[in-house]
Amino acid sequence: MANFGGHAIPGSFFLFLGCWLTIKHILQHYWRTSQPKGRRVMSPSFRALDYTEGGCLIFASFVGIMVEQFVVDGPHARLYDAENKSWVKLMNWQHGTMYLFFGISGIALVASTASKLVPAGVDRLVLSLALFVEGFLFYYHVHSRPPLDAHIHSLLLVAVFSGSASTMLEVFMRDNIILELFRACLFMLQGSWFYQIGFVLYPPRGPEWDLTQHDNIMFITMCFCWHLAVALLLVACISSVVWFTVKRFSGRGQDIEIGMRNTSSKSSSQKALLEESEEE
Amino acid sequence: MANFGGHAIPGSFFLFLGCWLTIKHILQHYWRTSQPKGRRVMSPSFRALDYTEGGCLIFASFVGIMVEQFVVDGPHARLYDAENKSWVKLMNWQHGTMYLFFGISGIALVASTASKLVPAGVDRLVLSLALFVEGFLFYYHVHSRPPLDAHIHSLLLVAVFSGSASTMLEVFMRDNIILELFRACLFMLQGSWFYQIGFVLYPPRGPEWDLTQHDNIMFITMCFCWHLAVALLLVACISSVVWFTVKRFSGRGQDIEIGMRNTSSKSSSQKALLEESEEE
Amino acid sequence: MANFGGHAIPGSFFLFLGCWLTIKHILQHYWRTSQPKGRRVMSPSFRALDYTEGGCLIFASFVGIMVEQFVVDGPHARLYDAENKSWVKLMNWQHGTMYLFFGISGIALVASTASKLVPAGVDRLVLSLALFVEGFLFYYHVHSRPPLDAHIHSLLLVAVFSGSASTMLEVFMRDNIILELFRACLFMLQGSWFYQIGFVLYPPRGPEWDLTQHDNIMFITMCFCWHLAVALLLVACISSVVWFTVKRFSGRGQDIEIGMRNTSSKSSSQKALLEESEEE
Amino acid sequence: MANFGGHAIPGSFFLFLGCWLTIKHILQHYWRTSQPKGRRVMSPSFRALDYTEGGCLIFASFVGIMVEQFVVDGPHARLYDAENKSWVKLMNWQHGTMYLFFGISGIALVASTASKLVPAGVDRLVLSLALFVEGFLFYYHVHSRPPLDAHIHSLLLVAVFSGSASTMLEVFMRDNIILELFRACLFMLQGSWFYQIGFVLYPPRGPEWDLTQHDNIMFITMCFCWHLAVALLLVACISSVVWFTVKRFSGRGQDIEIGMRNTSSKSSSQKALLEESEEE
Repeated sequence: MANFGGHAIPGSFFLFLGCWLTIKHILQHYWRTSQPKGRRVMSPSFRALDYTEGGCLIFASFVGIMVEQFVVDGPHARLYDAENKSWVKLMNWQHGTMYLFFGISGIALVASTASKLVPAGVDRLVLSLALFVEGFLFYYHVHSRPPLDAHIHSLLLVAVFSGSASTMLEVFMRDNIILELFRACLFMLQGSWFYQIGFVLYPPRGPEWDLTQHDNIMFITMCFCWHLAVALLLVACISSVVWFTVKRFSGRGQDIEIGMRNTSSKSSSQKALLEESEEE
Repeated sequence: MANFGGHAIPGSFFLFLGCWLTIKHILQHYWRTSQPKGRRVMSPSFRALDYTEGGCLIFASFVGIMVEQFVVDGPHARLYDAENKSWVKLMNWQHGTMYLFFGISGIALVASTASKLVPAGVDRLVLSLALFVEGFLFYYHVHSRPPLDAHIHSLLLVAVFSGSASTMLEVFMRDNIILELFRACLFMLQGSWFYQIGFVLYPPRGPEWDLTQHDNIMFITMCFCWHLAVALLLVACISSVVWFTVKRFSGRGQDIEIGMRNTSSKSSSQKALLEESEEE
Repeated sequence: MANFGGHAIPGSFFLFLGCWLTIKHILQHYWRTSQPKGRRVMSPSFRALDYTEGGCLIFASFVGIMVEQFVVDGPHARLYDAENKSWVKLMNWQHGTMYLFFGISGIALVASTASKLVPAGVDRLVLSLALFVEGFLFYYHVHSRPPLDAHIHSLLLVAVFSGSASTMLEVFMRDNIILELFRACLFMLQGSWFYQIGFVLYPPRGPEWDLTQHDNIMFITMCFCWHLAVALLLVACISSVVWFTVKRFSGRGQDIEIGMRNTSSKSSSQKALLEESEEE
Repeated sequence: MANFGGHAIPGSFFLFLGCWLTIKHILQHYWRTSQPKGRRVMSPSFRALDYTEGGCLIFASFVGIMVEQFVVDGPHARLYDAENKSWVKLMNWQHGTMYLFFGISGIALVASTASKLVPAGVDRLVLSLALFVEGFLFYYHVHSRPPLDAHIHSLLLVAVFSGSASTMLEVFMRDNIILELFRACLFMLQGSWFYQIGFVLYPPRGPEWDLTQHDNIMFITMCFCWHLAVALLLVACISSVVWFTVKRFSGRGQDIEIGMRNTSSKSSSQKALLEESEEE
């Protein structure tokens, strides 16, 4: 993965995952706030979203592991070279391990969507572990590199471990829209930062960066904050667009349903809606 | 900002912000405890306070960014000097980034006050991020300075990161008066510590401090605790003064309102008040 | 304990403890979800499980302390050798201290099962302290060893301190099946990692590992993640097997009981069951 | 304070405080569990306990500050010696600062007991800050000392910062008997560890300790765990003794009161008691 493409692929993946999570959680949040309290059964369409997400995670991580193993200069499923008494391409094996855990989190998501026996929150716990493992492996990845290289990777760890911690919180605080969007934001930050790493360490065109200059480190630190600001902006924009789009499109269907309910239990349902909007 | 004034301006700003937050939150707390439980709709005057606070934050951070950019020796919106192959005035850009995040927190405050669609707590999350970014940039700011200079800045980080953590807690625990006042207290501490940094590193009169002497470091550590004690005292005094002033002035209006309610639902409202005071 | 056996014994113990905890907590969880809400009195058979666990912990730690003291090259209850002015076999004393705290956690478990006067959660607090003490002693154990030796022990600390933190959380969140299974998973991880340490530092057959080679450290880091994945898999498999076994075997008895209740209060008990399954 | 007595005095103080807190919180816990739920108004005798505790804290810290200032070789309220251009006896000033914060926590305790306007939890917040300040000052106290001296003080920090964290938790979780007793236990640990520091650094009789020997550091680490075990044991014993003493002595009075209530509302009060015991 030591080239620009090797950082652009996970970058794109995490950017896309961030957008997807924002859209999904806003839809769920819209649905939660527009339903009266008594009817909190998850509708089948949301299950389909979760199945899709889990399936994509499993598929992507399977492909990732295969690619890391069977590229031209990969380990081809050999771990130890007994002749030279050395490990074979540990970098590829480490990346494969990271993918493995994201695959497991996909399995956990599918399982907890499919069956009520799987306790709610297991998917978040395993996702949090996947992020922890990613950060954990990167942490020992970084030693003995040039200063800027080490620094830019350690900034990635800030995004990864924050994401792990905030996802762990979601195990105990389900359906908290702020935590859900914050997680999406951190995935976006991680994705865009992978691109930044690629641009700095393997500039596709233009001059090389001086990996030891202190000013470059100072700029990169500040640049990380700008990425965070952009990620916040992106989440805010996507959320607003999705929310108002859904509101407009679901408006007519909603009206009809409310109209029907109104005949039977007008006052009670509206009271529930009022209480709900006050709570939020 | 490498002079006394450059530390006095943010110092005054944070001191003022700390006082403002103390007064605002005590007013809100008074209002919360004096209302019966069923009437927890935020009154328009509190919205006005939040709009003012958000507007001031946006305005102050805009001015701050402009000043950092367009002072005589500022970067004048140039980031990279292609001729000398060097970054232009990164210090000013970093300060501008800090202001940017406080501006974003102002926008979040205005947005969450204006619309019920913005989930409650977003303003605190973004404020917490703003403090985190401030501390994060300062942390990499401090390397390779004389011992006392590094130490006095790292003590600032204690106040900044504590503030960030306690504000993050407020995302999940809304309307907790202790957390709100603790945040105000930490802003005051930060403000007064900025002044202390100015007095030590750029003494406006009197002799220079020896930046390598161990005794100076020991004194500064202790001095930080004294600042904390004074900040606690200030919050306690301002809170008491505001509370009793409001109580006296709102006494008459309150009596009338209670008198009117008494005629219709005396027992129920008094029971609610009793329950409330027991809970606190 | 500086041989393969000395790592295999605690390894087996923790692996076994992890399996036992998984089974116990799944049984409790099954029982909790299959009972209507009003009947949350712990049944005597679960008390028996807890007594057994506590008793085993006390017995095992007592045996452990005795073995550490009175093996051939042990300290034989002598702490200070006044003649040579040196401490006697501090390593054995440290291991004994670790066992002591697991023994205390066994006593706390028995006490809190036996009497309602002991506040619920004390057993978890003391177990958390036992894990903390284990990690605390290991932390100062590790200094000034070869790189791989230090690294492989510090990875153990990740499992130990995570276990301590997650057990501490259980003091405040009782009966959370995710936390309980996560604890079991971390015990398994700890157990299998003890085996790994034994295989690396004292290979029972085959060549010695080079304790200074960087590639070995990279492999071991990745290997820790694989152990975690296997522990997750084991917990998931054991949980599923236990759950479906219990369901099948308790099916008939359950039916009879429900049949009896149905005659008296059919609608209410089923409603409770429904509410419960929705909550999960 | 650089002698045995200087460590024995705070040691005795914290040991005594730990015992006192155990007794007070067990009494409160007994009272809470023996009252039906509706009657949760704090009785005047508990207020008296809190006033006493707060008063003692204020008095002790005032005396401590005075002693640190006006002992023979103290600073006599002089902070800066302009002639020698040096700070005067910073050690004494630092100890005075620690006492000051415990004094403030005493004032907060008295204030929050006296008035319902002071929000519940302020006393715990300030106590947590006092412990934080103590640890914070010790942390910068310890630099550039011999290894064993630095190590034995850094172990003290474990007790101090754990106490600060657990007290901070109590701000949000009031009346949690486990947290309250854990705090008492950590105060005892701190107290007995002060004695240990005194015995190691300033042995009142017997030979001096070798402050650089690695075995001594290993022994001291283990010794800290033994102190923790003893503190746990002490809290358990004191709690049991107090609980059963109170139960025997309050038995008769309780019976009478229950007898009187039984005539009016037998079933309801007993149901409340049952529910309560199930919850615990």
